[in-house]
This record gives sequence, structure tokens and C-alpha cells, in this order.
Amino acid sequence: MQNNYAKIISGIYTDILSKENLGKVPDYIPEIAKISADKFGVAFLDLDKNSFVEGDYKEKFSIQSISKVFSLTLVYKHLGEKLWERVDVEPSGNAFNSLVQLEADNGIPRNPFINAGALVVCDILLDIFENPKQEILNFIRNITGEINISYNKKVAASEMENGFRNAAMCNFMKSFGNIKNNPNEVLDLYFNLCSIEMSCENLSKSFLFLANGGKNPINNEEILSSSKTKRINAIMLTCGFYDESGEFSFLVGLPGKSGVGGGIVAVLPNHYCITVWSPKLNLKGNSYRGMKFLEEFTTQTGESIF
Amino acid sequence: MQNNYAKIISGIYTDILSKENLGKVPDYIPEIAKISADKFGVAFLDLDKNSFVEGDYKEKFSIQSISKVFSLTLVYKHLGEKLWERVDVEPSGNAFNSLVQLEADNGIPRNPFINAGALVVCDILLDIFENPKQEILNFIRNITGEINISYNKKVAASEMENGFRNAAMCNFMKSFGNIKNNPNEVLDLYFNLCSIEMSCENLSKSFLFLANGGKNPINNEEILSSSKTKRINAIMLTCGFYDESGEFSFLVGLPGKSGVGGGIVAVLPNHYCITVWSPKLNLKGNSYRGMKFLEEFTTQTGESIF
Amino acid sequence: MQNNYAKIISGIYTDILSKENLGKVPDYIPEIAKISADKFGVAFLDLDKNSFVEGDYKEKFSIQSISKVFSLTLVYKHLGEKLWERVDVEPSGNAFNSLVQLEADNGIPRNPFINAGALVVCDILLDIFENPKQEILNFIRNITGEINISYNKKVAASEMENGFRNAAMCNFMKSFGNIKNNPNEVLDLYFNLCSIEMSCENLSKSFLFLANGGKNPINNEEILSSSKTKRINAIMLTCGFYDESGEFSFLVGLPGKSGVGGGIVAVLPNHYCITVWSPKLNLKGNSYRGMKFLEEFTTQTGESIF
Amino acid sequence: MQNNYAKIISGIYTDILSKENLGKVPDYIPEIAKISADKFGVAFLDLDKNSFVEGDYKEKFSIQSISKVFSLTLVYKHLGEKLWERVDVEPSGNAFNSLVQLEADNGIPRNPFINAGALVVCDILLDIFENPKQEILNFIRNITGEINISYNKKVAASEMENGFRNAAMCNFMKSFGNIKNNPNEVLDLYFNLCSIEMSCENLSKSFLFLANGGKNPINNEEILSSSKTKRINAIMLTCGFYDESGEFSFLVGLPGKSGVGGGIVAVLPNHYCITVWSPKLNLKGNSYRGMKFLEEFTTQTGESIF
Repeated sequence: MQNNYAKIISGIYTDILSKENLGKVPDYIPEIAKISADKFGVAFLDLDKNSFVEGDYKEKFSIQSISKVFSLTLVYKHLGEKLWERVDVEPSGNAFNSLVQLEADNGIPRNPFINAGALVVCDILLDIFENPKQEILNFIRNITGEINISYNKKVAASEMENGFRNAAMCNFMKSFGNIKNNPNEVLDLYFNLCSIEMSCENLSKSFLFLANGGKNPINNEEILSSSKTKRINAIMLTCGFYDESGEFSFLVGLPGKSGVGGGIVAVLPNHYCITVWSPKLNLKGNSYRGMKFLEEFTTQTGESIF
Repeated sequence: MQNNYAKIISGIYTDILSKENLGKVPDYIPEIAKISADKFGVAFLDLDKNSFVEGDYKEKFSIQSISKVFSLTLVYKHLGEKLWERVDVEPSGNAFNSLVQLEADNGIPRNPFINAGALVVCDILLDIFENPKQEILNFIRNITGEINISYNKKVAASEMENGFRNAAMCNFMKSFGNIKNNPNEVLDLYFNLCSIEMSCENLSKSFLFLANGGKNPINNEEILSSSKTKRINAIMLTCGFYDESGEFSFLVGLPGKSGVGGGIVAVLPNHYCITVWSPKLNLKGNSYRGMKFLEEFTTQTGESIF
Repeated sequence: MQNNYAKIISGIYTDILSKENLGKVPDYIPEIAKISADKFGVAFLDLDKNSFVEGDYKEKFSIQSISKVFSLTLVYKHLGEKLWERVDVEPSGNAFNSLVQLEADNGIPRNPFINAGALVVCDILLDIFENPKQEILNFIRNITGEINISYNKKVAASEMENGFRNAAMCNFMKSFGNIKNNPNEVLDLYFNLCSIEMSCENLSKSFLFLANGGKNPINNEEILSSSKTKRINAIMLTCGFYDESGEFSFLVGLPGKSGVGGGIVAVLPNHYCITVWSPKLNLKGNSYRGMKFLEEFTTQTGESIF
Repeated sequence: MQNNYAKIISGIYTDILSKENLGKVPDYIPEIAKISADKFGVAFLDLDKNSFVEGDYKEKFSIQSISKVFSLTLVYKHLGEKLWERVDVEPSGNAFNSLVQLEADNGIPRNPFINAGALVVCDILLDIFENPKQEILNFIRNITGEINISYNKKVAASEMENGFRNAAMCNFMKSFGNIKNNPNEVLDLYFNLCSIEMSCENLSKSFLFLANGGKNPINNEEILSSSKTKRINAIMLTCGFYDESGEFSFLVGLPGKSGVGGGIVAVLPNHYCITVWSPKLNLKGNSYRGMKFLEEFTTQTGESIF
């Protein structure tokens, strides 16, 4: 099937723009609450270097949980399959069970994309790297070629200040021995990663290696082995959208990752990467317009992994 | 990539046969406990009508939960998207939560492949068809061209007699109004569907439409729309292997469905269907050799959906 | 302290009658929903044969869960401490955990006054007696001297018809082996016991042995040993009021048992028994006026077990 | 009934001393793990100033959770019934639910004797008093007339260092807004209170006001109102022994409080207070010999609240 991606993307963009923008910008992170609710950007990038963009695709926003893919990539690359002794790869069921599941599973988080799992990944980053914050930035700056990508210290600080639920989780896992470092250091790294700011364009560039069997599409250097790359895609599919992962797989049919900053990145292996950003979230915490856009996109292109 | 499937399949088969057969045949269904633990069959079938088989591929066994794909197919075809008002499409987390999750979700099961969800699907079958047992058989016999496929009344009766946990679940959902018929009739249909006996060869034939965009590969008639077909594949990927769905997606990377009879069917959309049968189950309730075989198979072929 | 019980009782009765009758008559049992919401009766009876009564104290109502004290008495008398192998004596925490707790405790209910525990007690009654329904009636008729006390078959049938949650619980415990008889027979006995109709006067008479060290106050015959009697009082204190047991102990300070029919019986060991009936229930399922009355009663008399 | 308490106490003491000392000294608090497992002391004290003691009744030990009664007393005295807006008075069911119950109850602990509830009480102490640590010591020193009672800083520090589960709980409640102060300050106060060291004799003296309607038995000054005193006794009965509260009420029949240091204090309102200390704990975390002693004691005296 030969799709006219440019036309499909611009058609869906116009259509969604014309409809009511439902959902709600989360108010618990003041810096994010300030963002205009009507920002809307799209950036498509494929392995043949085709790029189709719309709207606010160049504006940086808080990537929040999307950063969990970068930290997982670095840790998985260094630790290999030993990583899975400390975090599982199973979807997690609904959120209200998170602490009781940790208890039942002896402090082993269900997967690296729920907060508990991402905290364990941060704990490992602290063991692997002297300066993990710099390491993550270097990785993202290299792969995007954009050296201005950085942390938003204000966002990180404001999340740290109100992050009592994550602090509870981190201490709880520490009581099981699955956090090695000081919980406050782990939390500091975690909230800093969440505060990274990138544009749709940056994100599509930085995820494209996941569509390329683990190789940097620019210079063909291996970032991750082909097998590890597939596995990260698999985890994104089953666990990338909180308690809406099944729904995203069902409606969109692509591996992806969302963040409460309103961004969603999705990957069609061997083909392309597409990022949508719109700050209003649906009840499950995923971008309302982002979900709509991607559902319509795979419907019109007829392309998904299934 | 051009794979020599015949060679890969026979190589893996020989290799696994030479290794210890770990796991345990479940003992709570007397008729299944009697089966020789060393049965081992494989049947690969692709859209180009290539067929590669090994071992006990012609021997019929109890398909158990694999039948949930057939009942879902029929109900989804008839009810369309309204089905999802009564059962969700999210993975379920670990089993011990099943009843508490039903409570939290007001009697709506997390997905159609956990027992609660399959019971709701059976409840709907009772409303749609005068004789749902016959209807399901007709569907399977038609698609496989094998008219001897049938229920094993002894297995169904013995499961019914010990199925108090499913009876608990069914009554619990009835208390929420999400079961319309008499719980005993729902349970009777449910256990009968579990008792259907098919061979690896039968199963690969009967699932091939899921690799063919919903069309019967023999006569190209539409069984399900392309969109509905993709969605069933998506649900198989996120929910098809109980609490090992993430692991199967991670290690194998194909949509599939397993049963406690030791069968596993997996689908590579647009290409093939492959069924493995070996009765000993791992701790999560999936065929030990079946999982090993399929992990090795997608590793050697390099083909998966990711 | 010498209390003028008659004056205190009539004073509180008049006072409460003059205030708004809050709460709600439960609507899920049609026969109970029909009762006038303003019925209000009190019957106090002490070991010196003093009796002070008010309002509708002679009118029979559905005793519902109060019957659990009678069935526990008979089973405990016959089985002795072996009973506690099948049901525990711990308070249960909030209701929404009931099924998950049964799971964690391998099908052993937390105490004999939650529904699960009362179902196990009924299961044992079926093993001990040829005709447990007659046996329970005989016990109550003897101790009250009132031969008209009986089951309300309509109430029992209507609860049976809608009792899917209890059916779920019963089947769930059967799956753990902690129900020996057919779940439907257990449920039939359970709902019949709930349907017994007695007046405040009947109930105070029938509970007075619990204030009398286990001896029938009329003829001084031992019904239960002194030690077993204290233990039933202890269980009533910690578990007699669903998720309001702590509150009742805290505000009233007497062992007691309530039912959704609006009745509450309370016992001051070595002194008296008092029953209040008023059909409107508070949010925790206990009689609104009954709770108010008893709190005020122990405040004014200055007598409680603490 | 006129009991010869001296004879009963010495008889039971000798008997238990002659039997195997089962259970286990907890090893997670190094300072406590060092204590000789065979320490065994008893101190009985009644309102007529009779005192009967045995064994190591003069040796100080870590009172741990028994301190929760002191902090509750001070907070309840100052805050009155408004306290119950921040902590409930219901027994809590089994421990594994503690976090899920906090979630379901919006961060309101079930009662002031589970750790979560005691943390909220500490949070309030920080608001009421400039120097709550000194205030608590003053209270205990005054009531016992023993000015050497103090904190064990080593124990407090070692518990703080390993108290990740309590830190998790405290942060979790903070996320619901039910902790006002800095979680670390709350935890510091909490672990200090746990580290107070007192003897059996000290404890019986300090709890005697709970048997005396709230009045200091030495000078008859009111410490707590009679109504508040009864309520603390009620909470001790329903919640004083973790997940063995029902069992203690059932077997012993007295309000009481235990600590993992091996101490148990029990009160018979209007009569006496009795403390037993023996470091080996049963599976539920209560002193093995302490439970045995008190069960036998109320059996032989025939006195309990029921």
C-alpha cells in the first residue's frame, strides 16, 4: 500500500482542529498547567527521510513519562537481560492496585513504564553512571542533533515538592531491597528526567532508531541490538499507555509512549515514527487529541503491526 | 527475508525434543491429566498454502481457553463495538486481583480472554443464538473442513463439577447485572467450549483468517472485517497469555492464545499461523515447550510484529 | 450506680421520636422495603426480670443478620473450639475487601458474622442436624416461650433470587474446600435464617442467656458454657456491626448484633439485654435510630463494659 | 468473686516458665535482637494499691507500639472528638491490606494503633506541642513517678534507618493531605516514641488511670474524662493487637496493647492493670508468653469485660 502520508496527516489535523478539544490540562504541575491548552503539533518522520509536520511541531514541551523510554534504553543497553531481575515486563492492570501489586510481587514492579518501574530504572542509572543526568542529555542531544534540549529545573522542583506518592513507592521498594541508592536521589533523578523538554520533531527523531532495528538512522550505528529494540517496542505496546495500553493497542495498533505533558510518540517498525502533542488529557491521562489523531491515522493508512 | 521455515521448524523441534521436558500437566481436570506428558506437535500454515508439520500435529487435544478466540469472533461479528460496553480490552495484571478488579470495575471484566470476560461472551452467545453450541461447532467445522471436531462431554462435565471459582465469578458478575442468563447455563456453555478437541493442524487452519485480514484463506469470504480482525490480534497480543502476556509479547512478539490443554496458537499478520502442542505447563499456566518453541522460532526467523 | 432504667429509656425514646428519622430503608428486599419506615420499638430486660418497653416492641420484624448469633450458638455448642479451624474470630476491615481477604486466607472467613462466615456456619449446621431449620426454630421458640416465631418464606425466596453475591462467596469458598455441602442448600438455609421474624421483646428474651453466663435465665439450665458465652460476646463486640463495629464499641461499649431489618440487640454481661428496632439504616447498614438510642443509653446510664 | 491474685499469678508464672518458650525475637531492630530471649516479667497493680510482681518486672525494655497509647491520650485530650476526622476507630483487617485500605479511605487510617494511624497522631503532636518528645516524657514520668524513663536514641536511630515501610506510609498519607508536617519529622518523632524504655512495673502504673475512669490513681486528678477513657479502652480492645485483636478479645477478654519489644499491658476497667513482658513473639507479632499468661490469667480469675 502506498500512502500519501502528507495528505492524510494534514487532513486529520484540520479535521481534529475543527472539533471540540475535550479533556483537561492536569493542574498538579504548575508549570505545565500554564501551557496553552490549544497547542497542537504533529511530526512524522520515516526511514526514507520523509518528514511531514503540522502546527506546533517545533515547540518544546515537557516530555514527562516519554523520558522513561530513554532511561530504559540506556539501562537495558548496559545491563542486558539481567535488568529483568529487578523489573518485570507485564502490563499492570489498573492503577489503584499499584502498591498492593508491589507487595504481592515483593517489590518488583510490573514493568519499566509504571512509575515504580521507572524509579528502579533510575536507581540503576545512578549505579551505572557517574553523572546520569548528563548521560541522558548527551544521548538525546546526539540522536536528535539538537544541543539545546535540557531539563526544566522549575518543573523538576515543583514535581519533587509534591511527589509524595512517588516517594511512598520509592520507600516501599527500598523496604524490599529493590532500591539501592538513597530514595531522595532516585526521586531527584526521576523528576529531572520527567522535566526534559523536547518538540514533536525532536521526539520523532529520537525514537526513529526503534523503527530502524536499533540503528541510528543518520549514521547507521547500532544504538541497541535488533532483539533488544524489538523488546522495547513490545513493552511499549503492552505497557506504554498506563491503564489505556490495551485500548491504544486495540484502536491504534502501534507501539508507543505517552506523557502527561500531552505528548504521544508511536512507532511502526521498519517504517516510521510519529509524534503528536496536545496538552488536554483524557480520563486515563493520555492526550485527548493525540489519541484521536493516531487512531484516525492508522485507520486511514491501513497500517499497523496487526 | 526469505526463511526456510521447514528447516527452522524441524531443527527447533529436534532440539527441544532432546532437552528435558519441564513443567507439569495440570491435575485438576482428570481427562486432561491422563494425556501422555510427552505429546509434542507443531503445525505451520501460511497464506501461500505452505504447510510444515512435526510430531503429533494430527492428534486432537482439549483446546480449553483457545476456544475463547472463536466465541469472541462470533460475538464481535454480531454485536460490533457495542460488545465493549460489557467487557474491556485492557490486560488484567496478576490473577489474584481478578475478583477485586471486577468489584472496582463494577462487574466489567478487563478483557474477553480472562475467565470473567469469556463468561460474559458466553452470556451474549446465549442471547444471540438459539443453539450456540452448534453454532460454534459449525463455525469451526466450516473453517477447518473437518466435520469430526466436537465437544468432549466428559471433560466438560468434570470441569463443571469442579468449577466453583468460575461459578463464583459468574454469580458475582450477575450481582452487577453483567450476566443476563442463568449462571448455570452460562457456565455449561463455557465449559463445553473449553472441552472442544482439535489438532495442531485444525487450529492453524482455523486461525489463518486472523493472518488474512479476516478473510477465509480458502474461499476469500469475509469472516470478520479487516479492522475487527486487527483488533482481535491486538487483544491476543496484550491479553492472550494470562499473566505471561507481556513476556510472550516480549520474547515471541506475535499475537497468540494459549490453553491449559497445552496448546498455543500464534499469528504473524499477513503471513502465517503456527500451532504448538505440548501438555506440560510452566508456572504461569502456558505450555513449557510451546513457549520455548515459539521464542526460538521468531528468533531464528527474525520475524515478529515488532 | 443505681439507674432508673424506665425513666432513661422513655426519655431517650421520646427525644429520638421528636427528631428527624434519617437513613434509608434498604430497597433490595421487597418485603422489607414495604415496612413503615417510622416503626420504632425498644425492649429492655434484665436478669432481675425487670422489663421496660416502648413503642412497637411487640411487632415482629425480619431479624436478618441477628440470626447469625443463633446459628453460631448452636454450631459452637456442638463443635466446640474445632469450629475455629473453619472460621476465624478477627474483625474484617472494610467490605470491599471481603473476596480478596478470602483469597488471602485460603477460603477461611475472618469471622462468623460476615456473610462468608455465616455461610460456613450454615454449612456446618447442615452436617450436624437432620433438619437444621426446625432445630433453629425450636431453639428460639424454647428460649422465648413464643411458639409463633417462624420463617418468612417470601422474604427468604426473594433474597435467594437476588443473592448472587452470596452465591459468589459460597462458590468461592467451595473452591477452597471450606464448604462441604451443595452451595444451593447452604444458601437456602442461610436466607431462611435471615428471614426469621421476631419482636424486640422476643429478641431480648432470646439473647438474655448471653448476659447470664450462658444459662437460660428462666430455668437456669446451661445453654452454653460460661467460657463459650464470653467468647460469643467478644465476637459480637469486635465483629457485630459490619464496618461499624469499632464505632459501636467506641460509642456504645456493649457487645451486640445488628441486622438490615433495622434491629439491634445489645448485651451488658451480668446485667441486661436491650433491643431496639427502627427500619431506616445509616450508611454502614445499621439502624440509624437504633445506634442513636444505644449511644445515648450507655451515656446516660454510665454503664458499659469499658 | 474474690480472687487470690498473688497465688494465681505466681502459679501461672511458674507453669509457663517450665514450658518451652516458643516464638522468635524479631531481628530487624539490632538493639532489640540483643535482649536475652528468656526475660520474663509480670506486674499486677490494682486500684486498691495491691501489687503482685514476678521475675524481670523491674527491668526496662523497649515499649515500642505500647507508646501509641500515650500519644493517643495526649492528642485526644487536646483535640477531643475532632481527632476522629483524621483517623478512624475501626479494626483494620489483615496487614497486607494496609496501603490499599489507605487508598480506599483517602488517606484516613483505620485506627490510631496501626502504624499509619500512629503517624497521623505524631503529626498532630507536632502541631500541638513545641517539644512533643519532652511532653510525652513528662507525662510518663509524672504518672509513674519515675524520672529515669527516657528514649533510647540508638534504637530510634536504627529503626529510622530501616523504616522504609513507615516512610512509604507517611509519604502516601502526605499525598492525601493527611500529614501536615515534613514526613521526616513525623517519622523521627514516631521512632523516638517507639524507643521509650519502661519496666512492667512502670507500665502498669502508667496505664492504671485507664482502669480508674481517667483519674490518676495516686492523686485522683483527672487525666482524661471518663467518656474518653472508656473510648480508649474500646479502641484497645478492637485494635490493640494488630491482626490478633479479635483473638485477644476472644481468649483474654480485656482491653490491652502490645509492642514488638515483647510487652503487653491489659486493663480490667474499675479493677486493675497487668503487664507481662517476654521478648519472643508469635507469628502475629505479639509476645508468645505474654498471650499465654493473660489467657490463663483471665481463665483462672474468671474476670473479663464479657
